[in-house]
Amino acid sequence: AEMSQGHISVVLLGATGDLAKKYLWQGLFQLYMDQVSSGHSFTFHGAALTALEPGQKMMFDVLKKLACPPDEAPDRCAVLKDQFLKLSQYHQLKTAENYTVLNREIEVLLRQEGLKEAGRIFYFSVPPFAYTEIARHINSSCRPPPGAWLRVVLEKPFGHDLESAQQLAAELTSFFREEEMYRVDHYLGKQAVAHILPFRDQNQEFLDPIWNRHHVERVEIVLKEVVDAKGRTSFYEQYGVIRDVLQNHLTEALMFLTMELPGNLSRTEEVLQCKLQALRSLRGLEKHSAVLGQYQAYASHVQEELKKGQDYVSTTPTFAGVLVQSDSLRWEGVPFLLTSGKALDERVGYVRVLFKNRAYCTQSETLRDAGHSQCKAKQIIFYIGHGALNTPAVLVSRNLFRPVMPKSSWREVVGQPELHVFGQPLSDYYVYSPVKERDAYSVLISNIYHGRKDFFITTENLLASWAFWTPLLNSISRQPPRLYPGGVENQNLLDFEMVSGELAFTAAEPVELLHPDRSMPSDFKTIQSKFRQSPLVSMWSEDLISQLASDVEKAANRAVAGSGQFHLALSGGSSPVALFQRLARHHYAFPWRHTHIWLVDERCVPLTDPESNFFSLHSHLLQSIRVPYFNVHPMPVHLNQRLCVEEDGGTELYAKEIAALVANSSFDLVLLGLGTDGHTASLFPDSENGLEGTRAVVLTESPIKPHQRMSFSLSLINKARQVFVLVVGKGKHDITTQISRVGRQPRKWPISGVSPSSGQLVWYVDYEALLG
Amino acid sequence: AEMSQGHISVVLLGATGDLAKKYLWQGLFQLYMDQVSSGHSFTFHGAALTALEPGQKMMFDVLKKLACPPDEAPDRCAVLKDQFLKLSQYHQLKTAENYTVLNREIEVLLRQEGLKEAGRIFYFSVPPFAYTEIARHINSSCRPPPGAWLRVVLEKPFGHDLESAQQLAAELTSFFREEEMYRVDHYLGKQAVAHILPFRDQNQEFLDPIWNRHHVERVEIVLKEVVDAKGRTSFYEQYGVIRDVLQNHLTEALMFLTMELPGNLSRTEEVLQCKLQALRSLRGLEKHSAVLGQYQAYASHVQEELKKGQDYVSTTPTFAGVLVQSDSLRWEGVPFLLTSGKALDERVGYVRVLFKNRAYCTQSETLRDAGHSQCKAKQIIFYIGHGALNTPAVLVSRNLFRPVMPKSSWREVVGQPELHVFGQPLSDYYVYSPVKERDAYSVLISNIYHGRKDFFITTENLLASWAFWTPLLNSISRQPPRLYPGGVENQNLLDFEMVSGELAFTAAEPVELLHPDRSMPSDFKTIQSKFRQSPLVSMWSEDLISQLASDVEKAANRAVAGSGQFHLALSGGSSPVALFQRLARHHYAFPWRHTHIWLVDERCVPLTDPESNFFSLHSHLLQSIRVPYFNVHPMPVHLNQRLCVEEDGGTELYAKEIAALVANSSFDLVLLGLGTDGHTASLFPDSENGLEGTRAVVLTESPIKPHQRMSFSLSLINKARQVFVLVVGKGKHDITTQISRVGRQPRKWPISGVSPSSGQLVWYVDYEALLG
Repeated sequence: AEMSQGHISVVLLGATGDLAKKYLWQGLFQLYMDQVSSGHSFTFHGAALTALEPGQKMMFDVLKKLACPPDEAPDRCAVLKDQFLKLSQYHQLKTAENYTVLNREIEVLLRQEGLKEAGRIFYFSVPPFAYTEIARHINSSCRPPPGAWLRVVLEKPFGHDLESAQQLAAELTSFFREEEMYRVDHYLGKQAVAHILPFRDQNQEFLDPIWNRHHVERVEIVLKEVVDAKGRTSFYEQYGVIRDVLQNHLTEALMFLTMELPGNLSRTEEVLQCKLQALRSLRGLEKHSAVLGQYQAYASHVQEELKKGQDYVSTTPTFAGVLVQSDSLRWEGVPFLLTSGKALDERVGYVRVLFKNRAYCTQSETLRDAGHSQCKAKQIIFYIGHGALNTPAVLVSRNLFRPVMPKSSWREVVGQPELHVFGQPLSDYYVYSPVKERDAYSVLISNIYHGRKDFFITTENLLASWAFWTPLLNSISRQPPRLYPGGVENQNLLDFEMVSGELAFTAAEPVELLHPDRSMPSDFKTIQSKFRQSPLVSMWSEDLISQLASDVEKAANRAVAGSGQFHLALSGGSSPVALFQRLARHHYAFPWRHTHIWLVDERCVPLTDPESNFFSLHSHLLQSIRVPYFNVHPMPVHLNQRLCVEEDGGTELYAKEIAALVANSSFDLVLLGLGTDGHTASLFPDSENGLEGTRAVVLTESPIKPHQRMSFSLSLINKARQVFVLVVGKGKHDITTQISRVGRQPRKWPISGVSPSSGQLVWYVDYEALLG
Repeated sequence: AEMSQGHISVVLLGATGDLAKKYLWQGLFQLYMDQVSSGHSFTFHGAALTALEPGQKMMFDVLKKLACPPDEAPDRCAVLKDQFLKLSQYHQLKTAENYTVLNREIEVLLRQEGLKEAGRIFYFSVPPFAYTEIARHINSSCRPPPGAWLRVVLEKPFGHDLESAQQLAAELTSFFREEEMYRVDHYLGKQAVAHILPFRDQNQEFLDPIWNRHHVERVEIVLKEVVDAKGRTSFYEQYGVIRDVLQNHLTEALMFLTMELPGNLSRTEEVLQCKLQALRSLRGLEKHSAVLGQYQAYASHVQEELKKGQDYVSTTPTFAGVLVQSDSLRWEGVPFLLTSGKALDERVGYVRVLFKNRAYCTQSETLRDAGHSQCKAKQIIFYIGHGALNTPAVLVSRNLFRPVMPKSSWREVVGQPELHVFGQPLSDYYVYSPVKERDAYSVLISNIYHGRKDFFITTENLLASWAFWTPLLNSISRQPPRLYPGGVENQNLLDFEMVSGELAFTAAEPVELLHPDRSMPSDFKTIQSKFRQSPLVSMWSEDLISQLASDVEKAANRAVAGSGQFHLALSGGSSPVALFQRLARHHYAFPWRHTHIWLVDERCVPLTDPESNFFSLHSHLLQSIRVPYFNVHPMPVHLNQRLCVEEDGGTELYAKEIAALVANSSFDLVLLGLGTDGHTASLFPDSENGLEGTRAVVLTESPIKPHQRMSFSLSLINKARQVFVLVVGKGKHDITTQISRVGRQPRKWPISGVSPSSGQLVWYVDYEALLG
């Protein structure tokens, strides 16, 4: 009837698989019903490795069972279903030739019917190992002619960590352009999740003042399952709950909440950029950002299904709670709790934004229930489904505001006043549910058809997400999860709480739940002994940094209690960065107001140059804490608008400043590192200055760029009350071994000259540096 | 029976007054019952202005009605009451001679009975205007002999504001030594209040980690009354709820919560010092720290009782909610809400400490009620009395800890599980109530006897409290309180909430409640016009500062949106301090990370000298915000270890720094002040430098100390994009008037040379400076 908009060929690869049977064919049928009058014509090509005849039969068995949605007139649906079956065809796609043939068939059909080609959709509902070959075939044989688009739809997993995701992405990028790829996260098709951004956009007037760290108390993003991993352990054992749910689904929901709102939601590129920005603003995760669990029967499921012995120990988590924080100005300090698990007490998914309660109600409780008291909890919940409500929904506390909702797609729900959700009766909320409930795949297939790339995961988005999650996955790989019985028996065993920026289970692990013969995969015992005749602290690097940070705080408190001040001299380089971050994030009670911060060494670049040691110290520590301006003492490498010129007297200036403020120029604590050539501070082997003599601060030359340096001398370092030397990483193993054996030879190994004349020296060396 | 500890004479002045009738005689009788076997002997002297015979009769009518407490054996009590009556005597105390006679009587008695004198207690239960004379008489005629102590007990009010309190204190100090004065705040005798410190001390193990800003969400200190001020308006109209309840009772409870715990609670002096320290750590209050109400019938009560006309308007608050914050490291940022009022819905008093909830409960709500879920609210409540519990009590949430309570004085309460308090069933708490309920005066009289000065208000304590409250009282004196109907009708009309560090009622004031013919006492309309041909903003000073701070933030956002940076140059002196504080406390969204801060002028003193402009800027602004270190640009007045020496080139150095970072040396905003001699920046009349010529930064001489200054020149100031001149206070009225009339004469009036060549000049002048 209408002017033809061109023809669309949809090719479903894996046409007889589980996902296709359960969702994809139904989604394609829904697309056909919705778009039959759009002016586009369609053909649907199921494909699989199965030979033609059995494949055809299997596929049509699925198609015959396609359901008519309740909101569709039965007569119309029956007619359309008949047409849909006629437009659908099965293909065996196995060899290169199969693809060439498919391509020819599409071309012939179009020529015969006199149709212009609009585009082709290839839906990859196949295991990821098959991706590369299929992609190659499509790219070489099945591209539509110029003017028509190609859209390939990919299903997760998109890799296993950052490296594998990068590799997979690189392969796909060699076959497809970025705009051709539609990576599915079916959560983006969940109606409540898909409505987060429109909700924020349409309710800007109310949300603008409160959608920030000043008003949001916490956010919970939760997907709880009742089922366990039985029957799926061959997949699950390699992935676990973080890769399966948190890295993708929950992270995407998180982005919709935290991203800055683009000026126009229909500008896909702008939406994607804002989302990427939000992802990159997340603060890095550490081992203790997560609590992990594993349901008790998991071990036996794995042993049976993967034919493992009784001694096989799995540390794959089936439950995780993760504390995520954003460093954006808007969200700094707000806890985002991401939680998911199998074998829990109920099936439910939700995103809950809880606002701070700043009201005081003068009337007594019993008398104030009538109105919508400001003292009740204020929250906005995007209810993804299942649970007590058993429908997708958006809930807004009535004491917040009456939200603007699009009437065509969401309707207000009344009734069930006795039902309690999130601590309050349902009558305390404005509640909206979808006018038409749609499954996620129908929504997504419609979005593929409309080219709405913002409902899919871009390569940049994917890699940024893996870059965020991979460090956590690495740091917990050795960590045994807490065992839980499963179902309602879990009781409060999986409750957890935030403790100074980390997560911990609230209840101690009951002994009887521990697997009787479970051996810990790794021994975390601290090695405490001597190194070069001085005390040695050795642990895995993360624990070492925690220990060092605590020891620095102890030294600070001791100094402040004694003299009212703490003079701390810090080294540049990469090793101390982890310490700086640890101090900034976990040591709230550190006596910063009474601490003076000095630099042990500096590169001769302006302080605002990212190469500057001070700049790094500022980024990782100073900007997060409150040290008085007067107590911060960068090295004067930049004087008279030039860098480290002898005549400008920067070294004397710094030495004078030290002499004026630090009693006897004896620092309370000097933190040093160790270079692979044995250097410490910026004192390199055979340095003319600083290794001998009594000058306090010297100019030196580094063998690597930037060459010019300013540095404490050994003489000044050795006046300190305490010196801590931090050595971390495999790369330091050789020099560590060497140094452990040599005597005092500062010209050859400057570090060997560190020997406080009346102070204490402590070595902090991680297992990798110590043991290789 | 026992060795005599000496004799104690108790003189109750105002022996037939209300307080004496209701509490004091009963308290003295209780003291006698408790201490009859202590080895001390007693006599009790009631005194008043009434002549001997009628006074005697009135007093003994009271004494005959003294009750036997339920925990006392009736026989023993009857005997003791009989003795007590025999030991009690009435005196008319009116003239100097009366006092001499009383003194003689005591001496004679002691001699006759052969008793050593232990001490004398004079209890002032008289109106404050009578204090001075009585004090003089006691001092001159009634002091006990050397070796015996004197204790004078004083009842509030202890002044009306800081000045009157100082005056009263000075008078008393001329008659009594500090250790002789016992100022009563009967709240310190309330059992739940008196137990706050012992509770903190005995539960240190549990409280130490959580009794701080990291764990406490908020604290509520509340005294609600049902009665109104009828019959007492002659007192109440001069005082109001803040002076009547908040300045004393609620502040004292606040101190017990916030003070550092002394090492030993029995060291009175240590306790008092810690308390004083806590009081001095409170952040200053501003007008918007409080919400105020007045019950509707109050106006007519005042008109009737004080014989005022229908046009008399009272702004005396009968309800107040005040947000108090402490700047101590422990409590920074924790809101303490002090609330009290008359004609409310119920009579109740409590101190409630609500902890932050950092737990996430994985199990669904319906399944987790059995145990003591970590997801329930965590609170500690010192329940002063009345209300739903109708007894003093200490409540601790069961998911916090089981408190240590002294078994001899507090017992655990069980039962009433259906009763809900503070949002939870009583069964969620450990609940303790006193073994023996004692009224406050009995407790206090016992403490006077034991010389426990820490249960009373010292002069320092009193004056520090008035120093804290007086600025708020001054700034609200013109402010009309919200009218409320009284009783349960108040509904949510008096609910209030915290909004960026201030308080506001949550509900808009309903029009029908407004007094029909009520005229506002003062007109707050902004005067917006021109001053010296430039825009003028004029308001009361506090509003002016708010407006200026908002305008500075607007300028900042505009500059950052345009160039990515905001270059702000700030002046020294006292006027900008209020602006700095306003910016630090209320402008959380200010783009500090992109702001560069420069000094318009500086005194030639080291930056750490309290006289330094930079030091003041640091104390009031920089230490509370997060400007990157690199963006802070103090003036280089201190070079080569000397101050402002021409040859050191500080002015050129600063000019170069400006030229390097600020495009065209054109600041986004320069904030100036105005001196009474017409100076601005540090450009004084007839200055050799800076008024003419093109040098950007100059050295100048001030007529007042410290004389040497560094300053922006007029030339540099006039390059700015915006210049705001802030002029505040009556002291500036004359110069403001003069300046408004003169032309451009910078040598005479440097301020008149401020005229940005292509930028905008705005005057911010408060009503007092503008109108005198």
